[in-house]
Formats: sequence, C-alpha cells, structure tokens
Amino acid sequence: MTVINGYEQSDREQKLDILNLPSLEEQAKAIIPTGGFGYIVGGAEDNWTLRQNTKAFAHAQIVPKALSNIENPDLSTSIFGIPLKTPVMMAPAAAQGLAHSQGEKDTAKGVAAVGGLMSQSTYSSTSIADTQAAAPDAPQFFQLYMSKDWTFNESLLDEAKKAGAKAIILTVDATVDGYREADIINNFQFPIPMANLTKFSEGDGKGKGIGEIYASAAQKISEADVRRIAEYTDLPVIVKGIESPEDALRAIGAGAAGIYVSNHGGRELNGGPAAFDVLPAIAKAVNHQVPIIFDSGVRRGSHVFKALAAGADLVAFARPVIYGLALGGALGVQSVFEEIDHELAITMQLAGTQTIADVKHAPLTHFNYED
Amino acid sequence: MTVINGYEQSDREQKLDILNLPSLEEQAKAIIPTGGFGYIVGGAEDNWTLRQNTKAFAHAQIVPKALSNIENPDLSTSIFGIPLKTPVMMAPAAAQGLAHSQGEKDTAKGVAAVGGLMSQSTYSSTSIADTQAAAPDAPQFFQLYMSKDWTFNESLLDEAKKAGAKAIILTVDATVDGYREADIINNFQFPIPMANLTKFSEGDGKGKGIGEIYASAAQKISEADVRRIAEYTDLPVIVKGIESPEDALRAIGAGAAGIYVSNHGGRELNGGPAAFDVLPAIAKAVNHQVPIIFDSGVRRGSHVFKALAAGADLVAFARPVIYGLALGGALGVQSVFEEIDHELAITMQLAGTQTIADVKHAPLTHFNYED
Amino acid sequence: MTVINGYEQSDREQKLDILNLPSLEEQAKAIIPTGGFGYIVGGAEDNWTLRQNTKAFAHAQIVPKALSNIENPDLSTSIFGIPLKTPVMMAPAAAQGLAHSQGEKDTAKGVAAVGGLMSQSTYSSTSIADTQAAAPDAPQFFQLYMSKDWTFNESLLDEAKKAGAKAIILTVDATVDGYREADIINNFQFPIPMANLTKFSEGDGKGKGIGEIYASAAQKISEADVRRIAEYTDLPVIVKGIESPEDALRAIGAGAAGIYVSNHGGRELNGGPAAFDVLPAIAKAVNHQVPIIFDSGVRRGSHVFKALAAGADLVAFARPVIYGLALGGALGVQSVFEEIDHELAITMQLAGTQTIADVKHAPLTHFNYED
Amino acid sequence: MTVINGYEQSDREQKLDILNLPSLEEQAKAIIPTGGFGYIVGGAEDNWTLRQNTKAFAHAQIVPKALSNIENPDLSTSIFGIPLKTPVMMAPAAAQGLAHSQGEKDTAKGVAAVGGLMSQSTYSSTSIADTQAAAPDAPQFFQLYMSKDWTFNESLLDEAKKAGAKAIILTVDATVDGYREADIINNFQFPIPMANLTKFSEGDGKGKGIGEIYASAAQKISEADVRRIAEYTDLPVIVKGIESPEDALRAIGAGAAGIYVSNHGGRELNGGPAAFDVLPAIAKAVNHQVPIIFDSGVRRGSHVFKALAAGADLVAFARPVIYGLALGGALGVQSVFEEIDHELAITMQLAGTQTIADVKHAPLTHFNYED
Repeated sequence: MTVINGYEQSDREQKLDILNLPSLEEQAKAIIPTGGFGYIVGGAEDNWTLRQNTKAFAHAQIVPKALSNIENPDLSTSIFGIPLKTPVMMAPAAAQGLAHSQGEKDTAKGVAAVGGLMSQSTYSSTSIADTQAAAPDAPQFFQLYMSKDWTFNESLLDEAKKAGAKAIILTVDATVDGYREADIINNFQFPIPMANLTKFSEGDGKGKGIGEIYASAAQKISEADVRRIAEYTDLPVIVKGIESPEDALRAIGAGAAGIYVSNHGGRELNGGPAAFDVLPAIAKAVNHQVPIIFDSGVRRGSHVFKALAAGADLVAFARPVIYGLALGGALGVQSVFEEIDHELAITMQLAGTQTIADVKHAPLTHFNYED
Repeated sequence: MTVINGYEQSDREQKLDILNLPSLEEQAKAIIPTGGFGYIVGGAEDNWTLRQNTKAFAHAQIVPKALSNIENPDLSTSIFGIPLKTPVMMAPAAAQGLAHSQGEKDTAKGVAAVGGLMSQSTYSSTSIADTQAAAPDAPQFFQLYMSKDWTFNESLLDEAKKAGAKAIILTVDATVDGYREADIINNFQFPIPMANLTKFSEGDGKGKGIGEIYASAAQKISEADVRRIAEYTDLPVIVKGIESPEDALRAIGAGAAGIYVSNHGGRELNGGPAAFDVLPAIAKAVNHQVPIIFDSGVRRGSHVFKALAAGADLVAFARPVIYGLALGGALGVQSVFEEIDHELAITMQLAGTQTIADVKHAPLTHFNYED
Repeated sequence: MTVINGYEQSDREQKLDILNLPSLEEQAKAIIPTGGFGYIVGGAEDNWTLRQNTKAFAHAQIVPKALSNIENPDLSTSIFGIPLKTPVMMAPAAAQGLAHSQGEKDTAKGVAAVGGLMSQSTYSSTSIADTQAAAPDAPQFFQLYMSKDWTFNESLLDEAKKAGAKAIILTVDATVDGYREADIINNFQFPIPMANLTKFSEGDGKGKGIGEIYASAAQKISEADVRRIAEYTDLPVIVKGIESPEDALRAIGAGAAGIYVSNHGGRELNGGPAAFDVLPAIAKAVNHQVPIIFDSGVRRGSHVFKALAAGADLVAFARPVIYGLALGGALGVQSVFEEIDHELAITMQLAGTQTIADVKHAPLTHFNYED
Repeated sequence: MTVINGYEQSDREQKLDILNLPSLEEQAKAIIPTGGFGYIVGGAEDNWTLRQNTKAFAHAQIVPKALSNIENPDLSTSIFGIPLKTPVMMAPAAAQGLAHSQGEKDTAKGVAAVGGLMSQSTYSSTSIADTQAAAPDAPQFFQLYMSKDWTFNESLLDEAKKAGAKAIILTVDATVDGYREADIINNFQFPIPMANLTKFSEGDGKGKGIGEIYASAAQKISEADVRRIAEYTDLPVIVKGIESPEDALRAIGAGAAGIYVSNHGGRELNGGPAAFDVLPAIAKAVNHQVPIIFDSGVRRGSHVFKALAAGADLVAFARPVIYGLALGGALGVQSVFEEIDHELAITMQLAGTQTIADVKHAPLTHFNYED
C-alpha cells in the first residue's frame, strides 16, 4: 500500500478471478478509502438517472438469429481507422490514483493488453505523457475539460498531440459539478494531485473538492469551441455528453468527428433519461455520418451487445475498470476487460452474430419490462 | 423549547447543513411531537396519491441542451409584476406553530432572506399582520379557507389586504378534511391556537381536530365565490386545487388571475392522479392566460425544473420548509430554500438553460419509468 | 367463545374503532382459527389475480370537479326499485359461522343497521329463513350455487322467495373449486354445518372440504339455467362472475336482470385480469340495460368511487365484513360499513359529487401507475 | 443414497404431496448436492431472461367464458398423430443423474404414468436405449446437440430411431454454453458420466464442465443441418430455440416438422425477451403449418393455459420435473405432472374450455401488469 497525504492507495498487481463486474463494487469498496470510493461510485442528487442507466437495458431485448451458421465471433472493430480488438473501451475517468498508486498508467497497460482503446481524463492522476508511455504502442484518446484559460487548453492539447493522442474527447455535459451527495457526506477533498493541473495557475487539484476544480473549468461551451479545438489540433474531436438528436446534429455541424452519447454515468444532470434510452434516436439522426461512442450503466456483455445494436460503434465504461484497477492494477484492468469481452463473445455467438458489424445490424425488440 | 398546553415547540434558530430535503423528515420527526409531526407529514386514506406525487417526476425526463454557451444561471422570475429571486415559493400551510414557537413569522423571514414568495394559510398559528410584519418588505400571498360566515371571510380579506397581501389564494380542494389516518392514530387535537380563528364565533381552533375546524369552513364553493372575492378585494385571486383543464378554464372564466395546480400534497382527495401528471394538459389549456403555480411532491431541484418545463410558472412546497423551520427557525427555512435553489441552479446549468424562461421552454421527454 | 366440533367461534358483539379495512385482516387472524381464516382469506393458485384485484384500482384515477358547489354528499341509491342508504353491499360469502357463532344472522343485522343490501350464500352457516328473520325488514338477495339436483335448487329458491328475497344471484364462475393453497396447507374441512345443505341428500357440509361440497354442485351451467331460474322464481336473476362484454350480453340475452362483475375475489380462476380492469368495457356493452354489481378487491372508499365511476351501480365486498363480524358481531359489521361509507362520503365531497348518480358520471383518467 | 465419484444421488421412490411446483425448488435444494443443484437451477449472466420468463405470464390474462355448459375438461391431445393424455411434456434436460440415481429412466417412467410425452437429451445420464426401455410403450422424442463429428451424430440418430423415437428435437440456441454463474461459483464439473457421450472420442463427460462438453458440439448450425437430419432419419425434426417469426419460417422452409419456442429456460442467451412474449407473433407466422412446442418459465396450470391460448400445441418444462425426480424418483415425476395437470384442469373448467382445442381458441387479454 502507498500512503499519500494520509490516503491509502492500493499497490496490487494481479489477475482477478471475476464472477461478474457488478460484484467488483463491493470488493473494491473494502480496499478504497471511503472518500475516494464515494467519489468513484457516486451519482448526482438522488441517483435517479444513475439507477435508470443500468435498468434501461431491460427496455430493449436481443432477438437471436437461429441457424446462423457462425462460430468463434470476432470482437475486433475500429474507429478512425484505428484497429481495436474489442468494441469496449475505457471511458475517460478522473483521478484514478484514488484507486491505485499507479493510477492511469496501470489502466492504460491493462487496456493495451486486451487490444482496447484507452482514453485519458484531463483530471488524471498521472500526466498525459506518463500515461501514454505506460502503453506506448496502444491507441489513446485525450479527454478535455475545457478551462476558462485558453492558454492552458492549448498547452494540454499540445501535450496530448505530442504524446500521440488519436482524438480529442470534448466533454460538454459537465459545465458545473453535479450535486454528488456521497462527496458531501464524506466532505471529500482530493488527496492526490492531478498531474495535468500543475499547469493551472490555481494549483494541482490536491486538497480540493471536485466543485472547486470544476470552478476553473469553463461553464460556457459552444459550437465555436468544437471548431476551435478541431482546427487547433487537427485531430478528430468527439463531443461527449450528447443526449438528443438535435444536439448530435449541431455538434456534427460544428465539426465533431464523433458523437459520445452519455449522461456522465449519472454523475452530472439528474432527472434526464437513461443514456441507453436516447441512443436509438440519436443514432438514427446521425445516420453513420460519424461514429458514436456510448457509455453510462454498462455492466454486462449483453449490455454491450444491446448498445451496439442500438446504434453505438464503441461502448465505454469506467467504474468497473477502476474497481479492477484497485483490486489488481494493470492485470486487474485486463481481467475486467477480458470478463466483459468473454460475456460479449458468448452473447454474440448465441445471438448468431459473427462480427461487430453483424451486431450493429442485429434487431432489438421492445417488450415492456420495467427492469 | 417552548411548552404550550403541554406541547413542546422548537425554539432553534440556526443555519442547517442540509444534504437533501428528503433527509430532513427523519430529523424533524425527532424533535416535533408525535401528534404535530403526524399532522404535517400525513396524507389521506392509504397515501396512494401522496406517494405518486413524488414518484411521478420519473414520468418526464429532462433533455439537456449541449453546447448552450451559458453560465451562472439566473433563478429570478416574477408573478403579477412582483420580482422574485427564485421560482420556488412557500406553499400555504397551516399551524406552523406545531413545528416552531415563532411559527409563520420565522417562515416568512426565511423566505424573505432568499428573495422568495411567502404565502400564509388561514389556519396559521400567527396572525396575518404579525406574519407580514416579520418580513415587512417581502411579498406575501394570503390563502383563504372560505368560512360559511361571509362576515368572517371579509374580515380576513380586509386584514390581508391591509397587511399588504399581493394576492389571494382560494383553496377549493379541501371542502372537507381528507381521511388522514395519522391524525386518527394520534387522536390529534391542535394544542396551539390559530391566530386568525380568534375571530370565528366558535373559538380559536385550539383543542380541536382538523375535522372540527373544517366544519366551520364552507363546503359549498362555486365560481361565484371566486368572482365575489376578486371583486371584494380587487386583488388577484388564485384558485388552488385545480386538477383538470376544464376546471382551470372554469376558474379563469370566473375571474381567477392564477391557477394553482395541486392535490393538497395528497392530504385531501386520495385516488386522484399525481399533480405533476395533470400539469401539462392544464398548462396547455390555460395557454398563458394566467400564471400557474404548482405544488405536491416537490423535493428536488430536478423536480422544480421538470414542473417549470411542464408548464408551471412558480413551484411551491411546504413540508420540507416546515421541517427546516423546526430544525432551525428562520435560518432553517432559509437553508431549505438555499438547498433547493442550489440544486435547481445546477440542474439549469447542466440542462443548458440560462433563465427561468429558458427552463419553461425546455423540452421534456417521456420514456416509461415507473419510479 | 362458542366451541363447535372443536372449532372456536367468536361471540363478540361490539362497535369497532376502525382505522381502515385492510388493518382488520391482522386483527381477525388473531381470533379466527387457522383453518377458518385460511379459507376466508385465501385465493387461487399463486394468488396472482387476487393481488391484482386491489392493485388495479391504481389504473384509473379520480378527476375531482372543483368549484362544484356541493355539500353533504348523499350516498343513497337503489336497485330494482329497492331504496338503499349506501351503494356498498354485502357480497354473498359462504360459511360465516367460521368467523362468528351468529354467522350470517349478525351480518344481516349489521348491514340492515346501515341501510344496506345483504346477500346470502347457498353455503351459509345459517338458514335462509333465519338470516332473513335476523333483519326482517331489510332487503336481501339470495345467491345460488346451482346443484346438479333441480329438486334441491327449487327447494332453495322456494325458501328464498318465501323469506322475501328480492333477487337471485346465480354464481357462474365457480363451477369447480379454485386451487386454494391455504385450504390445502391447513387440510381444511368445514367444522360447522351449512344450514341450507341439510336438504342435500349427501349431508350438511360439515367435515368436508370445499372441493367435496362443490362436487355436489353443477359444473355445467348454461344460458338455459338463467332462463329457468328466472321463470321459476319470477324474481330478477343476477348473473355473478362475468368478466367480458360478450358474456354480459349473453347473460342479458338469457334473461339476466343484472350483471355481477367479479372474479370471485381471486378465489376461483387465477390468471384472469383484475375485476376492476374489465369493468369499463362490460359497462359500455351493457349500456344501462340492467344494473351492474361489482366486487373483487374493494377495500377503500376511493375504490368504491372508482368502481361506480367505471360503470358499477352497486359495489360489494365480503372479506373485510367477515373480519368485522369476527371482531364485533352485528355491531362490528355495522362498523365496517360505516367506515367505508365514511371514506366514500369524503371522497364524494372532495371529488365534487353530490349523489351516487354524480359519481357514476364522474370522469376517470388513466395515467400509468403500476400500483 | 447412491454415491458416485463422491456425488450423492437420491434413491427416493415415492409419491409426493405437492402444494405447488415452485415450492419444490427449496425441497430439492436440500437433497441435491450444491454443484448439481446449481447446474439445474442456474440461468445465464444476471438471470434477467430467466426471471422474465415466469414474470411474463402476467402480460396476458385469461378471459373466462361464462355459462359455457361444460364439465370434466379433457386434457388429451396429440402431436404427429401420437395420442397424449396431457399437453404438458417433459422438456429435454441434461444429466438427470445429478438429481437421482435412476436418472432419465425414472423420468421416462413418471411421464409414461401420466400418459405424457418424454424427450431425451443428448447429454442424458442414461442411454437412449435404456431410457426408452424404462417405459417401452410410451412415446419419446430424442433431442440432439449436434456434434462437430457427423459420424457421431449419425450414430446417435441411429440409436434413437432404433429405440423408437418419434421425432428429433434439434437444439439450435445453445451453440456455446451460456455464462452460468452458479456453475462458476461452484466450479462445477459433471461427476457422473453422460451415457451417450461414451461414443464421443473425447470421453463421456464425467469430470468436465458444461463448457468443455459444449466444445465438442457444433457451433455452426444451419438450415442445411435441419434438412440433413430430416433426410437421414426420416423422422419429424423439431427445431428448438426459436425466438422470432422469421426464424420459425426459415426453419420450416428448411424442412422442420415442428417449431420449439424456447430460450432454453434462460440458460443460454441472456438479454432476450421472455419466451412467452415472443410466442404469439411466432404462432401467427407459423399459422398452423407445423405444431409448436413451448417452454421456459412454466410453473403453473394457468401458465400452461396461457401458453396454449397464445399459440402453443404442447407445453414443456424441466426444472420442476427434475426436482420431483430427486424427491421421489418415477413416482415423484408422476406427482409433478399430476399436480400441473390438476391445476390445468381446474383452469380449463373455470375458463369454460372443454378441450385442449378450446383452450387454443380461448381469448387472452392484455392489461398492463408488470408481474
């Protein structure tokens, strides 16, 4: 165990024997300090949207294709020409040092081990360069929480580009911190610095609440920002936090190279619909102009299948990965991805789908199940 | 603590550290005597409507507008030309002396502190004049439980007008007391006088059950009464307890200057729909002819947002405020409003809405969630 | 207490202080012997239909009429020209000696005390004449479980007519006993004779299971039987156990003078819909040709209101009455009816309905609430 | 008790006093070793589809026909000209030696005792010939898990035909083993040989997990396989595991003589709809071209009725039968079928249906009940 500012970080490095991803939460809770765990697990307000996110997968059902003559389903896919061995990617998630002393470096290693896609958060515990260096040949995206200070934004984007980031994920659904009761109960202050924030004039994030950190971030984000970042970086810009067809089209009109359907895992706006419920209409509107990434509530191979069939091109998640990180470091992260890939492969075979393209064309039906 | 007729009233005066409004109920229960608490918390019959009131906010969901380029949402609004710093107002609620020795006086102070709108109940523990004097410069409405005795009604209306009431709220959904089981279980009799009732021939309400008090009130209320009160006072009359488009239009036809959509917090008719569920059709029928106030079940910033987006101009609540009153007097009331305003401000920012007018135009979607 | 064949019958005669009808079940369970209680409370198979019966009242909601200018609602109504002080009647229910030593005699007295309508079951513990004599001036209907032996049927009908029965209720939904698990668990045999069965060649029912008793009853019941009974008695025949519009029309075509919508309180066919859910379509088809009686699941004044508004002319129930009988004899029965009438009167006032005719014309709305 | 490889098999032979089939699960759990019980009871992933299977019977409701003039309902029916005394058949289920030392032999005897239809699984504990010999005059179907090795398939089909199998059930929904968490938790390996697998080159199944056994089975199954098996055996081929109208028609086009609607009791694909929910559309598409067998979730007589009314010709189940086998051997199996037949007969009488043909034409209604 590593102790930093009194906060006990896991140092574990081991493969995990995983029954299923939901069961990791309890295990991780036992080893992540209360404040850190509350920050990771918590949603906004009364967690209504957070709960619906996972329950909503019951609203669509897989219609298997019998006699489909397939075997050994192939999970490989790609985005922006980048080949991936799995459609399940790591969502950008802040402050992974709360879970493990190696933070995002170990996450990147674990994701690389399964041939997946890593994305880094602006609020990472480890720096852009260090995280990329942990898995130098694996693809990474960089997620930007836009600062009010454009000099700082450009500095981050420069660093991301230099490190080899393949795309920028611009988060637009977190212009203020959600009302997270777990953090209030725990009076949570980040005990660990955020590496990228050392360039902020106001410090490195350590000893601050998430609200104070967001305070440095821009509240006002507009279509012009999408364009500006795309032009500045000449990288694909993915707009994260889209929940309506209209906004998806506006983002694309502003130059977005990808749409990221998400409600931030129920951590920001509470009272909006489950992300899975809004996905089909957005996918219909986007109509394959740009790829769609989806997250919020994914815990099962069948959830991944349903999200792909409902219009997603890649499916992301974070909390279970962070629990795997706490429990096993890079190997734990790898185990988490292997588990969900294993569940997905079984689902694909049983649904009669050979490839991810087949899954994307698979029909869903909509009987009325509450959960 | 103040003891009156053996009833122990809170004397607390302090700001509250509030996690969320629902959590206040348990705290208030610990300090409000059983009979008083039962009166405040209770609904009618098996509380079916009471429960649906809050659950029904799940029936509509907020569709955030991304890339909206806004910051620092502005909660200010107005009604009848009266500027307000928040769209959340104090619903008329009886007998607040059950919660605190200062009763409605402290409520008025707390509401004034946040720039909100106070409404007084006919069955207040403190008199119209005293309650207004507690916050002399702040706007107040006076709610009338119409007596069978018009002399008495006119006397109350005179006093309200003299005290500066900006409007009259005529309650029409409580022509008999609801079947409140908590009061029956507790054999509840009001231990504290109702100041306005000292003018009733039959006494001041002390030592009576709510049923006996209602017995002095008029059961028969008609459109003619709306007209009569409007003409007598020359004040805007808001008809409270409207649950259908037809009745809203009838009330407006009778001279109502405002419609108050409410089922009395589930305390009167049980078996009617959740107030939130009937709001959209009423708002469509009213079509901005007069402002709409809404209450029943509101506990969260996201609820306030949804009610405004569904057609309300102001959103009221009472039980959480009374709990705050018991726990902290005027400062406690202020804390309650600050909490829900804080949650609302976050919701507005995350939904991409700058002003209350924006919220009123914000789209809601309707996926099928039970609760 | 009276002990008969080792079975302990209540002898209580007292008014009850009733909070609500559902709360009586637990109280009655404490004084009715296990086998008898199981027989009374039990439904068929896994009790699915029994549970839906009460939950289904959530599927329609009362729309109150504001500003309706009414007071002191009037619960009086009539059927077949018989004046009644309440639209709530006693459903035919077997073997009330299981609950009280005076059995149906006390039930009849209690019902008469509130000016209501009594109905006797073929399987009553007390005889037709004795039950009628207990409340000689009060109206009663006689319910017939048709025997395979027409001589016996005619004998019962003769006795009912002689005693002054105003109508015959022919039960058609119980041509075999439902699969009642409580009776199986308790290996329940009737400890008390059924007075009317002393005329059956095979005995009086004592020491038999309900299945054996039903075995003497006719399984085959047809439209011809309705006609035959109507002609034989020259009394109105009400067909009980109708769950579809088609069957209601067929019964009327066969001479039925009334339709009784019921699923036998969930005690016979399991897996059919809640009785309340099928009522509106039946009422629409019947279109006031004959009166409609409704039972199954009614426990609250608001349930009675909803059933009337959905198309019923009278609303019946039995289990809560039998619990009241056990707890207080005739006075207990009276208390049960007074309680539900009280709740109904409040509901009527708050809904803005002056008379039962008004209730029958009151609108219901249908938001989607599960329970 | 028989102990084989340390696994304790029941030897009980007795009639059972059954309250209802769901109650058998707990009783069986007490006598079947943990690993075996987990294998029998378990579903896939988070058991979502497994749970919906039984809950879904709430989605349709029986509309009884009153005054139908019927008695003594007749449960007899037939398939492919084979007369059966009950429409409830034994679903093919693997490894019944886990429940009882006599395995499928006792199941066959018990099924024969009620005049029902037995189906054998490829993965039976007893051989095709032995199981048939246990009830030599009773009809049996043979279920094929197609091997990658056609020589082996042909050998099994030869043996089945020689033993007198009346039809072949080709399972197509289990081309890989579902993600069964109970087996993972128990690290379950089959302690008992699978008699038919002694012909597999890789052994007899003993000491293997279900995954390893499936590994020998074909993943690729196509319409050509249906044709090939039909031509090879000249027996009717029933395709098991159909969940959509399209697949039903494709199977018929490939020569299927029957359609078996099933999701394998929730043991294979998780996230698909309840089998009962997809049945009506499939039945409509099949339009009586071939008979339809249905399983997944059936536990009650009312479930059998609903499945028949929704389009099934025969209704199968397995888990409750296996519990009966463990608790009472052949007599226990017989008791299970007698219980569900008894419940079905009551349901038929109360619904006004004389024959299975009547049930198939009985209307269902669709009020919205969650469960």
